[in-house]
Amino acid sequence: MKRTLGTCYYPEHWPEQMWQADAARMVDTGLTWVRIGEFAWSRLEPTPGDLQFDWLDRAIDVLGAAGLKVILGTPTATPPKWVVDKHPDMLAVDANGHPRKFGSRRHYCFSHQGYRDECRRIVTLLAERYGANPHIAAWQTDNEYGCHDTTVSYSDAACREFRNWLAQKYQSPDALNRAWGNVFWSMEYTDFDQIDLPNLTVTEANPSHHLDFLRFSSDQVVSFNRLQTDILRKHTDAPLIHNYMGRVLDFDHFDVGADLDIASWDSYPIGFLSDRLEATDDHKTRFLRQGDPDMQAFHHDLYRAVGRGRWWIMEQQLGPVNWAPYNPAPLPVMARLWAWEAFAHGSEAVCYFRWRQAPFAQEQMHAGLLRPDNEPAPALAEARQVADEIETLPDTGTATADVALIFDYPSAWAWQVQPQGADFDYFRLTFAFYKALRVNGLNIDILPSTTADLSTYKLVLAPGILSLPDALITALTQFDGTAILGPRTNTKTPNLSIPTPLGPNIPCLDARITHTESIPPSADIPLENGRMVHWFEHLEGAADVALKTKTGAAAMVRNSGLHYLAGWPDPDTLTDIIKTACAREGISTHTLTDGLRLRNTATHRFIFNYAPDAAKWGDTDIPAAGVHWEPLV
Amino acid sequence: MKRTLGTCYYPEHWPEQMWQADAARMVDTGLTWVRIGEFAWSRLEPTPGDLQFDWLDRAIDVLGAAGLKVILGTPTATPPKWVVDKHPDMLAVDANGHPRKFGSRRHYCFSHQGYRDECRRIVTLLAERYGANPHIAAWQTDNEYGCHDTTVSYSDAACREFRNWLAQKYQSPDALNRAWGNVFWSMEYTDFDQIDLPNLTVTEANPSHHLDFLRFSSDQVVSFNRLQTDILRKHTDAPLIHNYMGRVLDFDHFDVGADLDIASWDSYPIGFLSDRLEATDDHKTRFLRQGDPDMQAFHHDLYRAVGRGRWWIMEQQLGPVNWAPYNPAPLPVMARLWAWEAFAHGSEAVCYFRWRQAPFAQEQMHAGLLRPDNEPAPALAEARQVADEIETLPDTGTATADVALIFDYPSAWAWQVQPQGADFDYFRLTFAFYKALRVNGLNIDILPSTTADLSTYKLVLAPGILSLPDALITALTQFDGTAILGPRTNTKTPNLSIPTPLGPNIPCLDARITHTESIPPSADIPLENGRMVHWFEHLEGAADVALKTKTGAAAMVRNSGLHYLAGWPDPDTLTDIIKTACAREGISTHTLTDGLRLRNTATHRFIFNYAPDAAKWGDTDIPAAGVHWEPLV
Amino acid sequence: MKRTLGTCYYPEHWPEQMWQADAARMVDTGLTWVRIGEFAWSRLEPTPGDLQFDWLDRAIDVLGAAGLKVILGTPTATPPKWVVDKHPDMLAVDANGHPRKFGSRRHYCFSHQGYRDECRRIVTLLAERYGANPHIAAWQTDNEYGCHDTTVSYSDAACREFRNWLAQKYQSPDALNRAWGNVFWSMEYTDFDQIDLPNLTVTEANPSHHLDFLRFSSDQVVSFNRLQTDILRKHTDAPLIHNYMGRVLDFDHFDVGADLDIASWDSYPIGFLSDRLEATDDHKTRFLRQGDPDMQAFHHDLYRAVGRGRWWIMEQQLGPVNWAPYNPAPLPVMARLWAWEAFAHGSEAVCYFRWRQAPFAQEQMHAGLLRPDNEPAPALAEARQVADEIETLPDTGTATADVALIFDYPSAWAWQVQPQGADFDYFRLTFAFYKALRVNGLNIDILPSTTADLSTYKLVLAPGILSLPDALITALTQFDGTAILGPRTNTKTPNLSIPTPLGPNIPCLDARITHTESIPPSADIPLENGRMVHWFEHLEGAADVALKTKTGAAAMVRNSGLHYLAGWPDPDTLTDIIKTACAREGISTHTLTDGLRLRNTATHRFIFNYAPDAAKWGDTDIPAAGVHWEPLV
Ligand SMILES: [Zn+2]
Ligand SMILES: [Zn+2]
Ligand SMILES: [Zn+2]
Repeated sequence: MKRTLGTCYYPEHWPEQMWQADAARMVDTGLTWVRIGEFAWSRLEPTPGDLQFDWLDRAIDVLGAAGLKVILGTPTATPPKWVVDKHPDMLAVDANGHPRKFGSRRHYCFSHQGYRDECRRIVTLLAERYGANPHIAAWQTDNEYGCHDTTVSYSDAACREFRNWLAQKYQSPDALNRAWGNVFWSMEYTDFDQIDLPNLTVTEANPSHHLDFLRFSSDQVVSFNRLQTDILRKHTDAPLIHNYMGRVLDFDHFDVGADLDIASWDSYPIGFLSDRLEATDDHKTRFLRQGDPDMQAFHHDLYRAVGRGRWWIMEQQLGPVNWAPYNPAPLPVMARLWAWEAFAHGSEAVCYFRWRQAPFAQEQMHAGLLRPDNEPAPALAEARQVADEIETLPDTGTATADVALIFDYPSAWAWQVQPQGADFDYFRLTFAFYKALRVNGLNIDILPSTTADLSTYKLVLAPGILSLPDALITALTQFDGTAILGPRTNTKTPNLSIPTPLGPNIPCLDARITHTESIPPSADIPLENGRMVHWFEHLEGAADVALKTKTGAAAMVRNSGLHYLAGWPDPDTLTDIIKTACAREGISTHTLTDGLRLRNTATHRFIFNYAPDAAKWGDTDIPAAGVHWEPLV
Repeated sequence: MKRTLGTCYYPEHWPEQMWQADAARMVDTGLTWVRIGEFAWSRLEPTPGDLQFDWLDRAIDVLGAAGLKVILGTPTATPPKWVVDKHPDMLAVDANGHPRKFGSRRHYCFSHQGYRDECRRIVTLLAERYGANPHIAAWQTDNEYGCHDTTVSYSDAACREFRNWLAQKYQSPDALNRAWGNVFWSMEYTDFDQIDLPNLTVTEANPSHHLDFLRFSSDQVVSFNRLQTDILRKHTDAPLIHNYMGRVLDFDHFDVGADLDIASWDSYPIGFLSDRLEATDDHKTRFLRQGDPDMQAFHHDLYRAVGRGRWWIMEQQLGPVNWAPYNPAPLPVMARLWAWEAFAHGSEAVCYFRWRQAPFAQEQMHAGLLRPDNEPAPALAEARQVADEIETLPDTGTATADVALIFDYPSAWAWQVQPQGADFDYFRLTFAFYKALRVNGLNIDILPSTTADLSTYKLVLAPGILSLPDALITALTQFDGTAILGPRTNTKTPNLSIPTPLGPNIPCLDARITHTESIPPSADIPLENGRMVHWFEHLEGAADVALKTKTGAAAMVRNSGLHYLAGWPDPDTLTDIIKTACAREGISTHTLTDGLRLRNTATHRFIFNYAPDAAKWGDTDIPAAGVHWEPLV
Repeated sequence: MKRTLGTCYYPEHWPEQMWQADAARMVDTGLTWVRIGEFAWSRLEPTPGDLQFDWLDRAIDVLGAAGLKVILGTPTATPPKWVVDKHPDMLAVDANGHPRKFGSRRHYCFSHQGYRDECRRIVTLLAERYGANPHIAAWQTDNEYGCHDTTVSYSDAACREFRNWLAQKYQSPDALNRAWGNVFWSMEYTDFDQIDLPNLTVTEANPSHHLDFLRFSSDQVVSFNRLQTDILRKHTDAPLIHNYMGRVLDFDHFDVGADLDIASWDSYPIGFLSDRLEATDDHKTRFLRQGDPDMQAFHHDLYRAVGRGRWWIMEQQLGPVNWAPYNPAPLPVMARLWAWEAFAHGSEAVCYFRWRQAPFAQEQMHAGLLRPDNEPAPALAEARQVADEIETLPDTGTATADVALIFDYPSAWAWQVQPQGADFDYFRLTFAFYKALRVNGLNIDILPSTTADLSTYKLVLAPGILSLPDALITALTQFDGTAILGPRTNTKTPNLSIPTPLGPNIPCLDARITHTESIPPSADIPLENGRMVHWFEHLEGAADVALKTKTGAAAMVRNSGLHYLAGWPDPDTLTDIIKTACAREGISTHTLTDGLRLRNTATHRFIFNYAPDAAKWGDTDIPAAGVHWEPLV
């Protein structure tokens, strides 16, 4: 596997006379890739039809001539003002019914046909002009789908398309009424055109209505992206990529990824710890300048699955950013740790965002490899160090994993629609399971719920997947390792109703959930050994009890290796459960504490120290933010 | 007094072939009542004028033939989509000016004349068809007025009707200007049509304007309900009922109740503790699976007053619900405790909500007596136990009380309009007084502020009633027991101005409030014995001082039995004040701790243990969630 | 300097027969001034063109005849309903796009030309009628500009005027695009009419766009006020005044003040502590009935600068108010302390708000010198005491200060637009510096950033001023005392971009900020002696290091007396830094603790005790809320 570095560059932000020196300096830094163009529409077409591609031709020439490979972005995340003036109703609408105005980015509704036509036009022009350009070695569609809550729009355009989507899916209003249970509260429709979007209802909308709207919204992202890939495929053989974000769950990345060649993501460890992770103040303070020790790895593993093995980091944090509640600087050498961790998880490329800090506009406080005055920022030397190390470290082969974790976007939507507990969240649950695996030092594969073959794994976890596909149920039933399902797994129909027989309804496992409890943070359910928090399910059935509450109720049941866990264990309890399962399967574990984390490749073990203090790995001292690797024996 | 059980049933949710077995099983469980129909409009009239009453005829026949008494609900809380399409402006509008859309329930503005016409039509059709049906033993109008903040609407329809209401009340703009003090800030009107609804003003609206709008909003509920009772009275002799909610104060239940025969309410002890009570985390954790020990009793006593002695529980929680922030399961046997407590407070019927858990739509996670798979949920056996106990326990007669607490809806609105302290709330204050009475083991009657005769009581409390009616002042003046007024009692005019002489302005009590203080939670006013929190009033006048602050200021004054309390005592202080008052009046008290509560009927004392642990009552052990009764001696 | 007292009076609120007695009682209380008229438009012109000035003539006559000097307010803060009906689009619009309705006050958008015409008309009528009236000794324009967040409006009128303002400023869209960096995210415009207001954007708007909108909004207040002063100047020689508020920063008071003769402000110490100061619960509880010990002094000093030496308190809190989250009563004699503190800081007049508590409308719970029943409230005697003391205390001359603090409104806007840390606020920073000066017992002058001569000072502070004007840079460079700049000082261009060379870019100080960090409350940066909180800047350059972090990085650098402080010190650290600077300059300091504060005039030292307990000043005991003065020796 070839490991490469890159950066994100905006030639349109700088005088043309700087381009050549920038390109040479990128090469000097050891970079291979340069991403350009993804926000440049107003420079490519300042007014309707006035195409200005010459500057981009020259920029690509300069960069390519210096030996860099160019990733060209389609500019559809930032339509110029004239596009919006031409299609005033293309703006997305928020849940309060307010149009989300021009003046930043991602100001479009995925469902607007007029805007889709504009996208078709500009992407076709770009594909025709640059599809065969030898310097263009990859394409990026749009930018960070879903960022700033932009997947879901309550616009008229979305309403029209949602009705069409429902008509396609259900064929008749009566079928829809039955599927949603609209007899409840007289919500029945006699015509698809009666159906509104599920915002601003008096109390919550029908959860099936809401869930279908979220499914539809995800499908709109998929078809919007496919519109672009269909055009690009006609004109280029270069790989097509999109840059996903962290903890954005409101469209199905597996579905979008199916139309792309490589998955990439934008990794901002420090920003994400600050703005999108549940954690104690102590945890957030300890990892303030490093990021959560598992957040990056989780997304590496997730997007490796989305990319069917091929994945990149398209934007790697390298200094303070501008957009989190608080924006500290990374510890020295963190930009190196983050890159090596990505490589250890199989990334083909890590592109630092961005080349030079822009002195103007929204991201002026977002650090780059260079400062606004063109002097090196601290991360420039770290990038050079990584480039040198790539040269010296032999390829470490493709990693394997004994453990798989199933991840399912529709479950995230269903949990959001109907959490049943105020602090309930599918990502939070799944990430807790992932953390417990990591604390045991395990390599993990994340798999989609469409998986039908688990035979290469010894331990499979499927927490919180509300509705298991038949093929996965079959695979689980035939699996001869240890599987742990639950909580909530397979307890709903795909339309978000309660099935009969009651869940989890797995063949061979005689267990039914009779009723459930959501529990406030001040309370818990003590187990014989450990405790459940947030959630507990009461089970009936003849399955063996593998774990009990203090009062003797079943907390986990099983039939041979197939387990159902009837609640949300706290971190220590979950770590123990996984350790026990690993022991049963002969998987060796390493109990890691604090910020130390492992990742094995085919030939090497990598150890990363996320802590702000030095740590011991065997006899080896690993400094704060340190990376250590050693051959696997 | 006859005690009965019942349940809420939705024949339209289930295949017709299940009805017969369901009815038989209800009878087997010992149920007398079955409520149906209140959300069924889309099945009764799927499209305009297409009336489909046959299925309801058959459902009533099946249920009635099994021996059940049917409560028939008017379906006006859930108009079908075609009604909304016909009257798009019938939707209520929220305080931000956004229409509250179709897709759940209660999606109507009480002021919309077109919707009132639709209600007249459907209620007339139902009354004509079923008014004389021998199985229909009671009617329910609409469902849970005010639930989901639906009393107040900022729609154009509301604005039109509010102007009419004001014109009726004040007759001239000048009279209104004087009553509201509109000379302040040049808010004077020259025409009623200039008057807008009091939302979205730059800073707070004139409190008199706001209060009149809340009075109007309450009156609209009253007239909407009367529209239905006027029709029903023409066609039926069965009692008319509405099912109120807990801690919904934005319409005057005494006014609505005046047009009905029986008051009923929907009691969700665990949900209400979670979502609508101020309490510490410790308290909420201790009573997590039982509910607050006084919340139910308070509403029992309140609605007994609203029903002029006749009251029911129309919906009784029996398991986890779906709508609170957290939804734990009740302790075993809580469904029995709650029922017996209602009976001890005089309830004629307790109907468990609902018969069978629906597997679809918004309330699919709301437990029933049966599970979605038709197996018994835990509460089915508890209901059967209660039915058996009713058989064996002789009628225990009508209870009496020595103590009365005056409750006044307009005061709740006035406090909301002008709280003067951020954590100020009329219900919170009144409930604190109620709790202090209960902790002293007292039977309590709640009385409306229209009460003119207090002669059957020994102790009367009237905290926080901003404006006392003349008749009540007379009754208090003539009262020869102990009365405790204040804080804030009679300190405002009915239009929410400051009267001269200054309040409380009770004949024979020489006391005036010179100025007041609202106090943040971090501060208090120490008393010689106890402390005031939230609120303190500085008094002048010659009345005897009954309680002093540490600095010697009057904290309670009195003339003989008539007391004025100049602040909000903390719980212990309030308990002491009441104990002292009871001693003065020869009322015997029982100091109860934690979750133990008493209620005497004419012949028996009932003891309820709300705690999660066993408790002692004299020599008797009462288990967690236990009920004990013993003859009064 | 003449010291006087006054009050605010609303003759239109009271029967005309009370006016004479009120006037006599004001004189008896020792008052000189009475402010009237500022909310009386609906009484002056009840319907369009129906002018009713007779009552105002008589009120002025009665007050003037009693010997009072009248301040006449223009009534433009409260246009009557008919004005709004005539110009429905004159209402300001909030950030969500909702018009802010009639029904309270300040319901107008500063940019609406139709409303400006109405203001011109009514102000002209008043100026013509009363400009030469001998009883009118001062005029007040409008009332509390900016109160209730009314400076910024997102109306169509504001959008139109903003485009004109931008066209004037930039002359061409290209110039604007370059200034704002609109090439970023394709935000470029080709026509000024394409530019929208910066609300409701998908993510944050371009900070330059946002900042220009805030500058424009401030300019609209300035021109609105000037519209009135231009008219008044033609008809009167009496001084023109506006009454500013506390911690209102969204228009430039120096700009408004340039058109006025005297600055005044409305001082509500207890309300402001409750509703607009960051402080611990302990601090808020300790000063609950006194107000923060520095908040008043800060504004006294600020508005003395705004008034170019002449300033008043137009509204002085004297008892509980109605509008803060909690509204306790002041300690006895606080109304005296507050007045004397104002006088010690140079105030010419202190007017107590208000004469008699109104029993109706929004402020009915706002205390006055008289109660609603016309009896004296506690503060009446305190006002009389102050009046007596003024008689006996000789004029104490004009104070001087060794220390200056630069205050800059545009920096407040720029911080708001782009804080970079969630708890970052320019006022908060500047007030922390002011507090540290006060705790050292210093007299302070606040200066605008347009200051070009610092030669009378020994110590100058300029924290957080994002862009230093050239004249101030020159003055600082030539300054031979101690100057402390930073954090963030001169780190941005006036258009809110990052300059090259990087800031602070002060001639003679070789220091550049390479990158910055915002830090959550749970973290800090330890210094060798002290700590930084909220913010830290990494410096490079050859300047001498005056303060170091524990890890050896520069935390303050200097060249001779010119210092740059690279972070936000915690209170103790800041107090030490200032004490050291004072020692260097031979400025004597007094280390004050808790609530004791000093202010020297030319001849006397005043000591104020804000604490709720007695305190010692040398051998003198100063009681709670006490004031002590002694001759300077
Ligand atoms: Zn983003
Ligand atoms: Zn809105
Ligand atoms: Zn104000």
